[in-house]
Amino acid sequence: MVLVPHADVASPSAPARTPSLLARLGAVVGPRAHDLADRLLDLESWIARDLVEVEGELGRLIRGDSLVEKSAHHLLDLGGKHVRPLCVALASRAGGGFGAAARQLAVAVEMVHSATLLHDDVVDLGETRRGSPTARLVYGNAASIFAGDWLLVEALRRIRAAGVSGLLDEMLAVIEEMILAESVQLENRGRINTALTDYFRVVEGKTAALFRWAMLAGGRAGGLPLDSCRALERYGHHLGIAFQAVDDLLDVHGDAAVTGKALFTDLREGKMTYPLIVALERDPALLPVLAECARLPPERPLPAPAIDRVLAALVATDALADCRALARRHAGEAARAIAPLPDGGGKAALVMVAEMTAGREK
Amino acid sequence: MVLVPHADVASPSAPARTPSLLARLGAVVGPRAHDLADRLLDLESWIARDLVEVEGELGRLIRGDSLVEKSAHHLLDLGGKHVRPLCVALASRAGGGFGAAARQLAVAVEMVHSATLLHDDVVDLGETRRGSPTARLVYGNAASIFAGDWLLVEALRRIRAAGVSGLLDEMLAVIEEMILAESVQLENRGRINTALTDYFRVVEGKTAALFRWAMLAGGRAGGLPLDSCRALERYGHHLGIAFQAVDDLLDVHGDAAVTGKALFTDLREGKMTYPLIVALERDPALLPVLAECARLPPERPLPAPAIDRVLAALVATDALADCRALARRHAGEAARAIAPLPDGGGKAALVMVAEMTAGREK
Repeated sequence: MVLVPHADVASPSAPARTPSLLARLGAVVGPRAHDLADRLLDLESWIARDLVEVEGELGRLIRGDSLVEKSAHHLLDLGGKHVRPLCVALASRAGGGFGAAARQLAVAVEMVHSATLLHDDVVDLGETRRGSPTARLVYGNAASIFAGDWLLVEALRRIRAAGVSGLLDEMLAVIEEMILAESVQLENRGRINTALTDYFRVVEGKTAALFRWAMLAGGRAGGLPLDSCRALERYGHHLGIAFQAVDDLLDVHGDAAVTGKALFTDLREGKMTYPLIVALERDPALLPVLAECARLPPERPLPAPAIDRVLAALVATDALADCRALARRHAGEAARAIAPLPDGGGKAALVMVAEMTAGREK
Repeated sequence: MVLVPHADVASPSAPARTPSLLARLGAVVGPRAHDLADRLLDLESWIARDLVEVEGELGRLIRGDSLVEKSAHHLLDLGGKHVRPLCVALASRAGGGFGAAARQLAVAVEMVHSATLLHDDVVDLGETRRGSPTARLVYGNAASIFAGDWLLVEALRRIRAAGVSGLLDEMLAVIEEMILAESVQLENRGRINTALTDYFRVVEGKTAALFRWAMLAGGRAGGLPLDSCRALERYGHHLGIAFQAVDDLLDVHGDAAVTGKALFTDLREGKMTYPLIVALERDPALLPVLAECARLPPERPLPAPAIDRVLAALVATDALADCRALARRHAGEAARAIAPLPDGGGKAALVMVAEMTAGREK
């Protein structure tokens, strides 16, 4: 469950990605392109190494035997892509390196993310997460709510202990943004005619804000100057949007066996995603079909004709292609945002992560 | 909905309280007892003034129109006893006075308390709070969960902004204690044979810890030295236990019209309180009756014979009297804890609050 394969780096499953990556990296790391293929391999193994380190740190979290701690670990042990901690790691490498403080901050950002998932699963009555039953199904809603609270507080204590000034205040502000975005999403729930402006408000608050913090945290822990940290934050903002756009895409068009999530989960929870909003704008006759899907109780499967109708519209209106294009555009913006940073492995790896994020299939 | 009447201080509804209060105050404020009655009136109006100030500050909280903010304000607007902010105010008056920082901290402690109530009501499926429908019934479970998250984060930002060193770290530690106590309570839910040791673990974590922080915050904001702050924390710890013991008492023996809570709510939520644990210890035949009450679905009223049987046992076993005695003992411990503090109005008011807490009927 990691963003890149650990061992089989030149895996045949992603051959189409490499030329484009090489091209983009070429633009970033400068004209010395003769050793670019080697360099790419170096970068991928480097990212993999940082992920292993982050995962080791997450695995060493204290495990009490209380119901609340067990619920929290149930989710953490299911893994995940760990792209937020990876952001902290790579941003710190764009500066002085991935040291002890950055490692604490990387763990903290994953804990905050996990806290929101635990609360979201209670709110959405979620049953499956990362291909397994949600913590609320295993340990109950109550334990999930308190486990979210616990992870949040533990994360804040870690950020405090990391001792990098300003980061705790920024995280508190980010969590507030996240909650207010949840509120907007809640108010729009079941409203099929969601405006794209509301969609972007939710994505910026719920997803992009935490990516932004991850980049800031890594930059600050790596000792980078203010303007570089601001550039990293812009990267995080755009990467977050790209990440969410692909999540949206996978919800309507992914392979459930790979993503661990059933198709159309967002729609069934009454959440209109980017491809659905775009498809509806271009094919208004889709409205009653979407409304029917959103209204159906969770235990009833979606009718095959409705699925076929929505999928056909997503293709015919180019909504799927446009969603991937949105992700690529923001990944490009992310890469451009850090162009002023000094060249080096950290920066090159961040560009690669942006590229992989926009292209990911799981 | 305040701890003391604002205007009608010498109200005939509480005549029995005054002599005992005078006697205790006599022991604390020294031998100049001739003006003690006047002094008592001064103190009560002083406490009332601080409460008005705290309530004014709470009323000035920013009110956004998001669902989450509305849910949070739904609870805050229902008032409450505000005993935790009062602790901050009076502890600060034991030092340099109730200034701007102490006011922020007083608001923050009430916000944290309200955050826990919002989450508790979702966990317990609570329908009534302070005599009104709970926020989760008005705005939904989801909004209540996020409103709790929001209040928590807003409180932490306020504590941070108050700029009194150490208090944020202490609050994070206290919130963690509270969550782990919730976990113990959750694990014991429905277990009629709860041990008193588990009961006290829950009370110390869920209730006493936040009172302790309130006293520390007031003391620190009032510029008191470390040993005085430690004494205030001990006061808070004991006051919290006294407060909870009376809450337990009112749950089995209060006037629902006055407390705003139906009788036996704790038992119906599967929570064994001090008087119930004591009554069961002394009258083991009560077990099946209590089990029946705890098992009954919330929409079914408790059968009158069961209520009568439990109430009779609470009286016959002296469980009610012992619960009140527990409250008085801890109120006495609280007053003794601050004996080393310099004499003055702040200290005398804290002694009075301890006395009123143990004697309260709502």
